[in-house]
Amino acid sequence: MTIIMHDLAGADPAVRFSPYCWRIRFALAHKGLPVETIPWRFTDKAAIAFSGQGRVPVIRDGETVVSDSWAIAEYLEAQYPMPALFGGATAQAHARFINAWADTVLLGGIARLIIRDIHGMIDDSDRAYFREAREARFGMTLEAAQEGRETRVAAFRETLLPLRQVLRAQPWFGGATPSYADAIIAGTLMWPRCCSRFAVLADDDAIAAWFERMLDQYGGLGRNAPRA
Amino acid sequence: MTIIMHDLAGADPAVRFSPYCWRIRFALAHKGLPVETIPWRFTDKAAIAFSGQGRVPVIRDGETVVSDSWAIAEYLEAQYPMPALFGGATAQAHARFINAWADTVLLGGIARLIIRDIHGMIDDSDRAYFREAREARFGMTLEAAQEGRETRVAAFRETLLPLRQVLRAQPWFGGATPSYADAIIAGTLMWPRCCSRFAVLADDDAIAAWFERMLDQYGGLGRNAPRA
Repeated sequence: MTIIMHDLAGADPAVRFSPYCWRIRFALAHKGLPVETIPWRFTDKAAIAFSGQGRVPVIRDGETVVSDSWAIAEYLEAQYPMPALFGGATAQAHARFINAWADTVLLGGIARLIIRDIHGMIDDSDRAYFREAREARFGMTLEAAQEGRETRVAAFRETLLPLRQVLRAQPWFGGATPSYADAIIAGTLMWPRCCSRFAVLADDDAIAAWFERMLDQYGGLGRNAPRA
Repeated sequence: MTIIMHDLAGADPAVRFSPYCWRIRFALAHKGLPVETIPWRFTDKAAIAFSGQGRVPVIRDGETVVSDSWAIAEYLEAQYPMPALFGGATAQAHARFINAWADTVLLGGIARLIIRDIHGMIDDSDRAYFREAREARFGMTLEAAQEGRETRVAAFRETLLPLRQVLRAQPWFGGATPSYADAIIAGTLMWPRCCSRFAVLADDDAIAAWFERMLDQYGGLGRNAPRA
């Protein structure tokens, strides 16, 4: 049965840009599970009220509804064990650290580089909500939050050193083949790729080379995704 | 057969303080492997020349010599699979990210909080070497590098947010039980515990509560370790 997933969309409904939804798109593709995505907007709370909360991704798999990207990844691994996303309880526990790091350092760092660009590509109906919610979070305007990114990006790139160290030792964050760790990092990097033309990574960064390989995985799922 | 390990020691040879050696002490204890440690000082390169390099930990297991904490952990897992430190190739690949994060963010952050204290507790014979090498690395005196730690420690603690997020979801970094991920983080935290009286963690931090539990693991291996 095809899994249904509510997926954050921009003004152009073909542009899907949520870092959390992208983690699950990669996870589903890794397991070879067909998915039908439904474009969703930040303010469209009614459309996912059935999930008991207000954020995407939300998946519906037959009668089962699961929200929150980490919970969805756990669900998929339990329900459809092979090909494995984790490969055991300890790998899953270790991936939680990678997920937490991505949610804070990686996602938080990227936000300050592209937040104004996001406002420019989301639907008109989402803009007032988005500006108010994000300006409250940052304590400044979206314009101020993004300002100076050309110089600030160097410090952001330095925070990615642990990723580079791993890639010196192994081709994927999952080791010899991709795992959910690769879905986490690549999913998060799909966010700036789909929202913005600002280069968060330098071309000669080993992380960029790995990301290019991830873009080509799963029939070019990431490579072929529409960008704003 | 008892494994022999060269282990970095302070002026008091009972005080062992290397974050890398501590990772392996925890790893050996996890596997229930007996170890005989030989106190070693930074400038005692001749004593470990047999390993083909100049840093500890170095273990000798019968005829086999292994150096570098990560390589030793891999060796132990391959040679003595149970109880598992990793529990599979993907868990090991994911742990590499935790190791890289600990080597950069955690270890680098702690260094600027205790580096002058370390100089005060190492052997006289090591002091000139230590000062010269570390001052070259920091580009400043040891005193300047440690200065202002009472205010800077807050920013350091903020960088540990991913650890806290993991501990909200699971009791150990390895999940339901400790894994090498716990040895990595606890081993790194044994470094300030054994070198300094400066509190790198706040008492009410969930990471401190987890570290207290780790100190009591393996018969109180960490708890009972002499401090400078």
